[in-house]
Amino acid sequence: MKTAPPIERLVANLKRLPGIGEKSATRLAFFLLSSPERLVTELADAMVRVKSEIVLCEHCFDLTDVSPCPICRDDRRDAKLLCVVEEPADRAAIERSGDWPGRYHVLGGALSPIDGVGPEDLRITELEGRVRTDGVKEVLLATNPNAEGDATAHYLGDRLRATGVRLTRIGYGMPMGGDLEYADHVTVGRSLQNRRELD
Amino acid sequence: MKTAPPIERLVANLKRLPGIGEKSATRLAFFLLSSPERLVTELADAMVRVKSEIVLCEHCFDLTDVSPCPICRDDRRDAKLLCVVEEPADRAAIERSGDWPGRYHVLGGALSPIDGVGPEDLRITELEGRVRTDGVKEVLLATNPNAEGDATAHYLGDRLRATGVRLTRIGYGMPMGGDLEYADHVTVGRSLQNRRELD
Repeated sequence: MKTAPPIERLVANLKRLPGIGEKSATRLAFFLLSSPERLVTELADAMVRVKSEIVLCEHCFDLTDVSPCPICRDDRRDAKLLCVVEEPADRAAIERSGDWPGRYHVLGGALSPIDGVGPEDLRITELEGRVRTDGVKEVLLATNPNAEGDATAHYLGDRLRATGVRLTRIGYGMPMGGDLEYADHVTVGRSLQNRRELD
Repeated sequence: MKTAPPIERLVANLKRLPGIGEKSATRLAFFLLSSPERLVTELADAMVRVKSEIVLCEHCFDLTDVSPCPICRDDRRDAKLLCVVEEPADRAAIERSGDWPGRYHVLGGALSPIDGVGPEDLRITELEGRVRTDGVKEVLLATNPNAEGDATAHYLGDRLRATGVRLTRIGYGMPMGGDLEYADHVTVGRSLQNRRELD
């Protein structure tokens, strides 16, 4: 005898989320069932609205509800310092550290021949454009410290070296094989303070 | 500089879920943002509909989309065997084991003086009614194997002993301090097979 179909449907939908297996999904479903209606509708509403209200910033390609995004509009942020990250979640992780005075550029991923992600799939042309026209003095390559992120950083270094811009890479502090998105903000801050010239 | 308000709102809502902290919520939010619109609306819809479509079974108080629930309507299920559980999630865990040929009674919790849960807060009068009028021969007390669950089982034993019904308690197999909801189905099945008389 199965659980009632509306519960089964909810469990099936919850299982699509990353890190949520059968047991977690069942637990969440029963939690939602026993929760006040307001909590459930607010969560459902927040999920649907985030999809309709969030766009990409026309300058940095971060997720934002207004374009240009608040950071690209903020005159107190140094437009001559550009931090290049793979994903919006990485931008959020660096911002939480409070150690970056400049602006950002979200690539939209990292080079990965195995997954068929080449340079043309990332926002590299747009990055070159910003470096050439915005008077950028330093590009901090903050792609993740793993094989794809390192390859991407070196590829970007080769592409940008001719512009004469200072090229740096996030420094010691991040454990190898780690992921910016899940690092604690102290570690992320250390990796910004210890950034080094790209060799 | 904060993340965009619609994302912040989604993260705040996700953090209300059990077992979801700041990092998991952020991770889920960015996952939903990068997911197809259909996945998000289906999940939101399943969450809202489960609240409107699920009711309590008039007999066993399990969650169901039709009352009486499929198990209470199923003539192949032995109405003379009643398994008493704390919550619907426990009923689901036992049902997954495939070892219970009878029906269920969902108490709605366990006795807990500290939390102010007394006998009048559980569906005990309804349980006595079913035992007296439905010709029940065995009541398997499948409350959780922890302090509250054990106390509830013994309290129910005292209340029901006068009816002459056979009183059993789920047996060896469940680790002490464990929770039926999260146990694997083999362990749950073992605890049903090894059920013993309540002493």
